[in-house]
Amino acid sequence: MFWLLFCIFFAACLGAGVTGGLFAPGPWYRALTKPWFTPPDWVFPVTWMVLYICIAVAGARIAMLQGNGVAMAFWALQIALNGLWTPVFFGLKNIRLGMAVVSVLWLSVLSGLLAMWQIDVISGLLFVPYLIWVSIAAALNAGVWRLNPDVARNPPPAPS
Amino acid sequence: MFWLLFCIFFAACLGAGVTGGLFAPGPWYRALTKPWFTPPDWVFPVTWMVLYICIAVAGARIAMLQGNGVAMAFWALQIALNGLWTPVFFGLKNIRLGMAVVSVLWLSVLSGLLAMWQIDVISGLLFVPYLIWVSIAAALNAGVWRLNPDVARNPPPAPS
Repeated sequence: MFWLLFCIFFAACLGAGVTGGLFAPGPWYRALTKPWFTPPDWVFPVTWMVLYICIAVAGARIAMLQGNGVAMAFWALQIALNGLWTPVFFGLKNIRLGMAVVSVLWLSVLSGLLAMWQIDVISGLLFVPYLIWVSIAAALNAGVWRLNPDVARNPPPAPS
Repeated sequence: MFWLLFCIFFAACLGAGVTGGLFAPGPWYRALTKPWFTPPDWVFPVTWMVLYICIAVAGARIAMLQGNGVAMAFWALQIALNGLWTPVFFGLKNIRLGMAVVSVLWLSVLSGLLAMWQIDVISGLLFVPYLIWVSIAAALNAGVWRLNPDVARNPPPAPS
């Protein structure tokens, strides 16, 4: 049962993560002034793949437990928001809207972590690196905003 | 408990659904030849809002039941895929990749429906209109592909 559940949750992670390949960083992103702590591009897919495995393991563990309702609801919320940031930031090139998305994602990951911790500490722990990484992502988004105020204020028109 | 769960699941639906506003149909879509059964633009947000309420109610009902693991996993999978189609179709203007996304979404909705049906028939029934609508969406995507083969074969380069 664990492996069936893991595969479904991991597929959900890939559904969100595929946006990272579809809306990849291009010339627009490279031209932005980046904060000093910006990792090189290759770090992002590697980190996300490790995180997605942790996230799917946590989901599968929680799914097998009684009283998992709130934790499962937050798991669903975080994955719906996880796939939203990349199309907004790299697709729409909207730095401020990206900040809004990553902030709500951060809250949903924290809520999921707390809800899972109460019924399975290991699942809660598996969300800790995720929360740390989303914190870094939020700091990066905020740094890009601060360092490129004109670009942030004038996002290009949405694709039509 | 039901209302707390409903709100979290509904927030997940909105996280997916907001892509419909961010990547709205523009001149590119209007210039495509559409199948005869294409509904007017306003039908889509109205239908999705009704469907999202049904989907969130089903999620909240299932989340309160024992043995909900597989159903919860498919609920998470469908919402991760639900928010993917619009950025792919309207954002990347990739008709063929949109067809792939809507096909996998259709499978995840059917799987979710079957998994939920086994533990709560009402939740399964709440997914029936969703499955019907995704079937229509898939038929629309296929029709647009068939009627605009050159556009489908040559999607514009991804935004950079």
